[in-house]
Amino acid sequence: MSGEFDIIAKYFAPLSADAPGAFNLTDDAALVAAGDLVVTKDILVEGVHFRARDPKASVARKSLRVNLSDLAAKGARPIGYFLGCVWPLCVKEETIAEFAEGLRADQDHYKIALLGGDTTAHGMKGAPLVISVTMIGAVGPAGLIRRSGAKIGDDVYVSGTIGDAGLGLAALSGEFKPGASHKAHLSERYQLPIPRVSLGGALGGHASASIDVSDGLIADAGHVARRSGVAIEILAEKIPMSDAARQWLDKQDNRDASIARLAASGDDYEILFTAPAARRRSIEMASQVTKTPVARIGAVVKGEGVKLLNAVLAPIEANRGGYDHFQP
Amino acid sequence: MSGEFDIIAKYFAPLSADAPGAFNLTDDAALVAAGDLVVTKDILVEGVHFRARDPKASVARKSLRVNLSDLAAKGARPIGYFLGCVWPLCVKEETIAEFAEGLRADQDHYKIALLGGDTTAHGMKGAPLVISVTMIGAVGPAGLIRRSGAKIGDDVYVSGTIGDAGLGLAALSGEFKPGASHKAHLSERYQLPIPRVSLGGALGGHASASIDVSDGLIADAGHVARRSGVAIEILAEKIPMSDAARQWLDKQDNRDASIARLAASGDDYEILFTAPAARRRSIEMASQVTKTPVARIGAVVKGEGVKLLNAVLAPIEANRGGYDHFQP
Repeated sequence: MSGEFDIIAKYFAPLSADAPGAFNLTDDAALVAAGDLVVTKDILVEGVHFRARDPKASVARKSLRVNLSDLAAKGARPIGYFLGCVWPLCVKEETIAEFAEGLRADQDHYKIALLGGDTTAHGMKGAPLVISVTMIGAVGPAGLIRRSGAKIGDDVYVSGTIGDAGLGLAALSGEFKPGASHKAHLSERYQLPIPRVSLGGALGGHASASIDVSDGLIADAGHVARRSGVAIEILAEKIPMSDAARQWLDKQDNRDASIARLAASGDDYEILFTAPAARRRSIEMASQVTKTPVARIGAVVKGEGVKLLNAVLAPIEANRGGYDHFQP
Repeated sequence: MSGEFDIIAKYFAPLSADAPGAFNLTDDAALVAAGDLVVTKDILVEGVHFRARDPKASVARKSLRVNLSDLAAKGARPIGYFLGCVWPLCVKEETIAEFAEGLRADQDHYKIALLGGDTTAHGMKGAPLVISVTMIGAVGPAGLIRRSGAKIGDDVYVSGTIGDAGLGLAALSGEFKPGASHKAHLSERYQLPIPRVSLGGALGGHASASIDVSDGLIADAGHVARRSGVAIEILAEKIPMSDAARQWLDKQDNRDASIARLAASGDDYEILFTAPAARRRSIEMASQVTKTPVARIGAVVKGEGVKLLNAVLAPIEANRGGYDHFQP
């Protein structure tokens, strides 16, 4: 195994080559030239946010994508990131190399650079890999899209499809056994979410509030409702689903409860946003231009909280939505 | 134990009150308004960078101070930070409260604010606390002080005293038994380093290269030498030491080897910098104005690497300086 500085020089410094302010990762800090910046930070912990056996290249890409997703939801353009890793004791160099390859693939795809960070290892045997990414983006020309701007009467939209990541995790753990092609689709949605970077950039000036769906559709709609001082109604049958999720749903006894389960499962990394009805055409255009499916799934109404309504507009009892690291 | 969002609202949101762009920690990202920014990131891992039994308030403060030290060495003014925590499974709320109090104390002292972050917990029993801080600062009017600017003929300086943190760790682990007041001084230097924020701000335009002493005086001088393409000679007897360190040194059999040990021990968080001889008066002024002791300990010369010279200018065999997370 090479030393810490060799590892940085060999695997990580090349990832900063396009960012002169990162000084090839040879200084204490990086220089970020920009106007107003949007900064976000997400930590991934082995055994919590990814499985020990997940390919490290995917874990690396996911650690970038969950942050790219946060920036997208704010209508910001990603610039670069700071990477903190706590590796298990006695990590193999191949593992780090594989991880760096994953970073490289997504850097190239999303046009971002590594700006700096800290590479350390655990002192304790068996302690899990921790990856901490702080990502920096430029505010879009129409400003930051907050969680707090939803107005009564606004439409509620979500990008892509919902529930796939949760089913993917269930499929990976063997709890649910879909066919091979559906299993591949669902597990990829869990391991390698697609941050809606282009769509987020196109929503500035149109969306009144926005959030990325990481805790689960219901939980994240709840964050928007709370911060905006409104209630959100979601029509269960309008929630967009993949073929794989539909097939799972069709096999369930209780359709309403099963939709609620999908709407409560996390890690989809779609964008949930609200916009005035007068913007329907603009939203449609944003969806077309960025080639990102967008579905209108509900409305902002007076009150508080999130209501999930079934086909006959009766409220569906939703189980506690979202993941809480401090609650069993 | 409260839930994740309650914990953020109760303990962490108040720490962001002075930073409107942090949106009270209720959004996905923070808005940082500034010109050119300096960004640095350091991770602290239980069992590696601090001991499990260290008071959590001190651990919190140390996690800020190691980053403040990086910014100071770059001549930057600290603005705020992003905090990522991975708590042990079943952490007690009192522990988090104590940690937040430590953050508050240092925020007030250093005039910085919490801007955002991510609060998670391990899924594995016994896994260690991990703290990841990304800190943002404003570039000083004279620009960033790099590691790479040292020129042949420059003086070499270091702030404060060297070796205390290493002796402090030895005293805490019982390996070395100083008197009570010396033990208190040394262990505080290890647990609660003093980042040289004012001095760093005063060095812009005077220092030619700068780094904070985290890996150890010799190792960090080595980083400057390598990046600047020069050699650095340090006079062992000029290295500033506390009374406690001097007393330890006087009891050792081999004075040269013992000074080398102090110069190789890490975690001092002093600033090592170089400056042209023509700037001696300016450096003296910077030291006086910022009330920070500064000692001239050597010179930048032709060649490569770092040479530690004893009282008769014979080179002292220095053991491998600096801590490497990937080498035994």
